Amino acid sequence: MRLPIRAVTPEIESAEIVGWVHEVRDLGGLSFFLIRDRTGIIQVTMPKKNVPAEILEVARSVSRESVVRVRGSVKAIDKAPGGREIVPDYLEIINLAETPLPLDVVEKVPADMDTRLDSRFLDARKPRVRAIFFIRSALTCAATEFLASRGCINITTPKIVAAATEGGTELFPIAYFEKEAFLNQSPQLYKQMLMAAGFEAVFEIGPIFRAEEHNTVRHLNEATSLDIEVSFADHNDVMGLLEDLIVHIYGSVAKNCADDLAEIGIDLAIPERPFPRIPYLEAIEIANRSIEEKISFGDDLTPAAERAIGESMGGHYFIVDWPTDIRPYYAMPYPDRPAFCKAFDLMHPRMELASGAQRIHDHDLLVERIRAKGLSTESFEFYLRTFRYGMPPHAGWGLGIERLVMTMLDLSNIREAVLFPRDRHRLTP
Amino acid sequence: MRLPIRAVTPEIESAEIVGWVHEVRDLGGLSFFLIRDRTGIIQVTMPKKNVPAEILEVARSVSRESVVRVRGSVKAIDKAPGGREIVPDYLEIINLAETPLPLDVVEKVPADMDTRLDSRFLDARKPRVRAIFFIRSALTCAATEFLASRGCINITTPKIVAAATEGGTELFPIAYFEKEAFLNQSPQLYKQMLMAAGFEAVFEIGPIFRAEEHNTVRHLNEATSLDIEVSFADHNDVMGLLEDLIVHIYGSVAKNCADDLAEIGIDLAIPERPFPRIPYLEAIEIANRSIEEKISFGDDLTPAAERAIGESMGGHYFIVDWPTDIRPYYAMPYPDRPAFCKAFDLMHPRMELASGAQRIHDHDLLVERIRAKGLSTESFEFYLRTFRYGMPPHAGWGLGIERLVMTMLDLSNIREAVLFPRDRHRLTP
Repeated sequence: MRLPIRAVTPEIESAEIVGWVHEVRDLGGLSFFLIRDRTGIIQVTMPKKNVPAEILEVARSVSRESVVRVRGSVKAIDKAPGGREIVPDYLEIINLAETPLPLDVVEKVPADMDTRLDSRFLDARKPRVRAIFFIRSALTCAATEFLASRGCINITTPKIVAAATEGGTELFPIAYFEKEAFLNQSPQLYKQMLMAAGFEAVFEIGPIFRAEEHNTVRHLNEATSLDIEVSFADHNDVMGLLEDLIVHIYGSVAKNCADDLAEIGIDLAIPERPFPRIPYLEAIEIANRSIEEKISFGDDLTPAAERAIGESMGGHYFIVDWPTDIRPYYAMPYPDRPAFCKAFDLMHPRMELASGAQRIHDHDLLVERIRAKGLSTESFEFYLRTFRYGMPPHAGWGLGIERLVMTMLDLSNIREAVLFPRDRHRLTP
Repeated sequence: MRLPIRAVTPEIESAEIVGWVHEVRDLGGLSFFLIRDRTGIIQVTMPKKNVPAEILEVARSVSRESVVRVRGSVKAIDKAPGGREIVPDYLEIINLAETPLPLDVVEKVPADMDTRLDSRFLDARKPRVRAIFFIRSALTCAATEFLASRGCINITTPKIVAAATEGGTELFPIAYFEKEAFLNQSPQLYKQMLMAAGFEAVFEIGPIFRAEEHNTVRHLNEATSLDIEVSFADHNDVMGLLEDLIVHIYGSVAKNCADDLAEIGIDLAIPERPFPRIPYLEAIEIANRSIEEKISFGDDLTPAAERAIGESMGGHYFIVDWPTDIRPYYAMPYPDRPAFCKAFDLMHPRMELASGAQRIHDHDLLVERIRAKGLSTESFEFYLRTFRYGMPPHAGWGLGIERLVMTMLDLSNIREAVLFPRDRHRLTP
């Protein structure tokens, strides 16, 4: 029976493995392969004197990145990866790789992002790249488990919708039979409608679609959002839940992905609760101390402003008490100072990770806010009517999974955190 | 602090609850409310003599399905739901519902499916409907946990794609900036490419989109698929994994959702392993014994055939060894009898649940099969090239989450298993 390569230790007498030929070296009387699977790398050593001729024959025809099966005896050896090697008595080429490879998996010369994404199937064979996606998997599974343990119901909301969440821009149109439809920008309206349905606490991890024209290292046109909505909760309650989730995820990754973190070279510090909460007014003041293009009241934060505040904060933090006018229509204004609302952003020193608010649950106030944004209430009727028959107070947020992975692992481009990114120019693979 | 209604037991002296007014009864000297949250129903009893006048005043103005907060003393009482009631000393209307309701939550008169879906937010307040979605949540969370424990990596593949998985039909077109794109029919090609990336075992729970014209009780145009792909595995290995998953999910729902199952009236029998495997040839023979429109070799099974075989099998089973010509191009033919392939369907007596196969991992054979289907290899180049540089043998399947929920809970229409279904005519809410 075959073993994962990591499970082949010097204590084992013999082993069968399968994997990809990571490197081939021929030193005259001695050939070496490095064989790689998703758990690690092992050296296969073929002293020409001691290995059957038919194995040497097969070995000569193997190209790098071919898939092979190897059986043989295991020897302890100091200089090889993992302190052991296999001397084969069986070698089979399962699938021979063509040469040359379109992308070098050993990556002696770093490739640019576009070249890497064009051959993502080879790029993701690199142990460092694989580690990113194994951590992303651990992260989403940990989130699911944590939120279920907190009584949140895992929901699925439609991605094909008839109306925009936040008005008419940045939508991808679809031909839905004879009707016009769009890809959903966010599950916002649907998760709120499930508060009207009495579900009380819901979450979804799913795709969101934004037809944004700009092409930056931190935007995607198709991204993954972790969305939450909780009834009888205010913005402070769901900020607490978000904080708990982030700390849980970091803890879970630190505990379960030590090897993957080491592969990427990350010494993961688990953030400490509570994350500081700074009001918008204070945030722009901090930013304006050091940035050139000053932020005025009612401006959104620029990337430069986010960096300046991030540097001053040093870790995760919340920006709270935003001007009502620059937040979506569904954010709840403070009753005693309606120019500000119960909205928040969760920030990493590098960028925004999540955005949320206590929502308006009063039908007439919501209609007023939709109109104030210059939007028509007509296309929102399917949503507005759920506020007329017993909508509870509620709050929630949406967290970008790719940004969470990107900041956790200190990746320079958000495309590093998606297997097959979709951006302004990229639609394949 | 407020309690979930289920946690209010006769042993508690006083409690605060929030919820929806499920029913209102006024018997002259005595008023009753039934208050409902997602955990249950409690009676609020207001004997006019003993309850403060201001509470009676508020009580008189409450409409059904309004959101209220109630505080009061808890009394044991045999005839009320849960054997207890609250006599209030505080009653607050949090959000008043308009009257009349567009859909009756108590459902004394059953509504038709379209009326229910038009007001899904009210329909889903019915304890029976809520229970379906709480079980669906438990089911997807249990699947995630189980597959992670089996070493499967949780992946996210793009939903916006440039090419059809299985040729050109049944696609929803998208305007992706200046390019033509489509909504993905299945993660098939992407999960296979991740086998080429050396991920070895992956899973995804995500939306799939089919522009099928027909409108039946078991088809959706947007559905949720649980997809798996495993390297160095054949069709038998992944049938084993599928069987294990189904048994795990049934066990987990039986254990964790007893109250929800009772609400729906389901006494859940956990299927027994191994599920019988019957070859396609035998399956059509069984069907032809009892159906009128006979199935010939090379025909797909009709719903009538599926029902006939299902009746004879009595539980979950696999149909294996399908004719190569009626399966997708990527199914692996048996080397010794290439008219048949290593494909299978997982069947519930009522219908097909999952479809899978060992896949072709040889580039040239795959090209041959794509051409034999009359498809052009050109649009598949992004996929085909991953077979030229070390593609391992692999197998996998896709399981329809809605069909799994539908058959588990004996629902008559697949729309019962989706919060906001998308079909030939429905795009809202």
